[in-house]
Amino acid sequence: MAKHTKTPAPSVSELLRLPPGERVDLAATDTRATPGISGGKGAAGAAQQELAERLAELQERLYASGRTGGERRLLLVLQGMDTSGKGGTVRHVLGQVDPQGVSITAFARPTEEELHHDFLWRVERRLPPAGAIGVFDRSHYEDVVAARVRGSVPQSTWGPRFDIINRWEEQLVERGLTLLKVFLHISPEESRRRLLARLDTPEKHWKFSPDDIDDWGRWDAYTEAYEDALRRCGTRTAPWFVVPADRKWYRNWAVTALLVEHLDGLGLGWPPATFDVAAERARLLAAG
Amino acid sequence: MAKHTKTPAPSVSELLRLPPGERVDLAATDTRATPGISGGKGAAGAAQQELAERLAELQERLYASGRTGGERRLLLVLQGMDTSGKGGTVRHVLGQVDPQGVSITAFARPTEEELHHDFLWRVERRLPPAGAIGVFDRSHYEDVVAARVRGSVPQSTWGPRFDIINRWEEQLVERGLTLLKVFLHISPEESRRRLLARLDTPEKHWKFSPDDIDDWGRWDAYTEAYEDALRRCGTRTAPWFVVPADRKWYRNWAVTALLVEHLDGLGLGWPPATFDVAAERARLLAAG
Repeated sequence: MAKHTKTPAPSVSELLRLPPGERVDLAATDTRATPGISGGKGAAGAAQQELAERLAELQERLYASGRTGGERRLLLVLQGMDTSGKGGTVRHVLGQVDPQGVSITAFARPTEEELHHDFLWRVERRLPPAGAIGVFDRSHYEDVVAARVRGSVPQSTWGPRFDIINRWEEQLVERGLTLLKVFLHISPEESRRRLLARLDTPEKHWKFSPDDIDDWGRWDAYTEAYEDALRRCGTRTAPWFVVPADRKWYRNWAVTALLVEHLDGLGLGWPPATFDVAAERARLLAAG
Repeated sequence: MAKHTKTPAPSVSELLRLPPGERVDLAATDTRATPGISGGKGAAGAAQQELAERLAELQERLYASGRTGGERRLLLVLQGMDTSGKGGTVRHVLGQVDPQGVSITAFARPTEEELHHDFLWRVERRLPPAGAIGVFDRSHYEDVVAARVRGSVPQSTWGPRFDIINRWEEQLVERGLTLLKVFLHISPEESRRRLLARLDTPEKHWKFSPDDIDDWGRWDAYTEAYEDALRRCGTRTAPWFVVPADRKWYRNWAVTALLVEHLDGLGLGWPPATFDVAAERARLLAAG
């Protein structure tokens, strides 16, 4: 019998990473796929629990490193159409770790004050501190997607932003930030189902705005703008990850796995004692 | 047979509230008591699960109200000796709700910049926005407790602060903030056990500082300072709640219950639709 050489399973990061510079055809990308996990929702349950425990420990190590002079930090950028589940991802995925180590910012349409600065000003001041996981629910990518589709700025303004974003992100990474950019990819049909569900549930009416339907009607324009942003800002230093997001359990599993793999890649141990443990122990027992 | 009139069980808030203006004798207050729940840790498990669900829903209602023009917000102030479990309370109690609606600040010793302002400056800028639950892990009470015990400011400075705090807190409440001030009460023996556990667990060494032993040695001075703060700032508008905290399961249960009762007291419903639901439904179905 021939010897069997087992190829290691590709990481979730490898499966979902958009190859730098490559054109992405979102309409041809399956929004119900579940790369990296088979057996459906049932099988994912146990896997999710195990991942959650790993994530909680890795997050605590990152936090501990930040408390002891380390400068590492991670920023999860979440983008996607309305109803793609950015808020749900924050609730379910980040809800698995100590809230003390997480800094979440949801970016709405820019305020008057924000518009008086350059477009990176408001995101720059919300970057996570050392030891933290930052989460951007929408981000500077709105300034090359929504601003473009809604026509709030001319092409001469949004056009140069791709390169500006690339240089800025490259510098952030150089300065010790781990950048994880995730596009939650849903189908227009699933989006319509979710909008209908909001309309049919009085407890969810506050989440609905008539503008959402107008934006839904611009699906193709948003798709085009996202395809450009993903291609032009999917760099070697700061690649994009495209997560099929019609199935919420898969979305949660995949984003958790991406966080685990990126944090694991930092190779953080527990900070060593900076004092004489035995001497302090003796001093404590002698006190009081 | 005489008719039986059943007295309703007192709320956890009633059981744990320090009567305004009353002197508290911390050494005489049992740190292992479990007011409001009997049957020990086992019985608390199911109760905790039920409370967690209520808390998550109430938090979402608060968040929804903030997103639709409401101004209500809640601030949980956590104070207590080192190792009393402030961080653990944040992790376990606030870990039960959507992290998007929670704003957590841990106050360390004031920085140079903070010392160039009055003592309320740094806490004021961390107050929660409308719709949020804010959490202060340590707070302006450090400025009448730690600052006093460590002698970093003279009595002529910390003395007037009690009245300043009372007027400030009163104004916050008047402006729509629900203030929930919790003192986590542990015994010196339990505190020493927890410090020893940190020394004996390499994964926890980063949480330990030799200063902790010095502070432990000042237990009586801290107790006196806390008794003053609890008495002088335990007002009708902003009372203190003293939570026995030697048992972590009770501490988590009690703080969850206090949050539930305070949020429930706001009587928040779900925001009504500000649009014609049927018309929007028809428009969405016709789109695309």
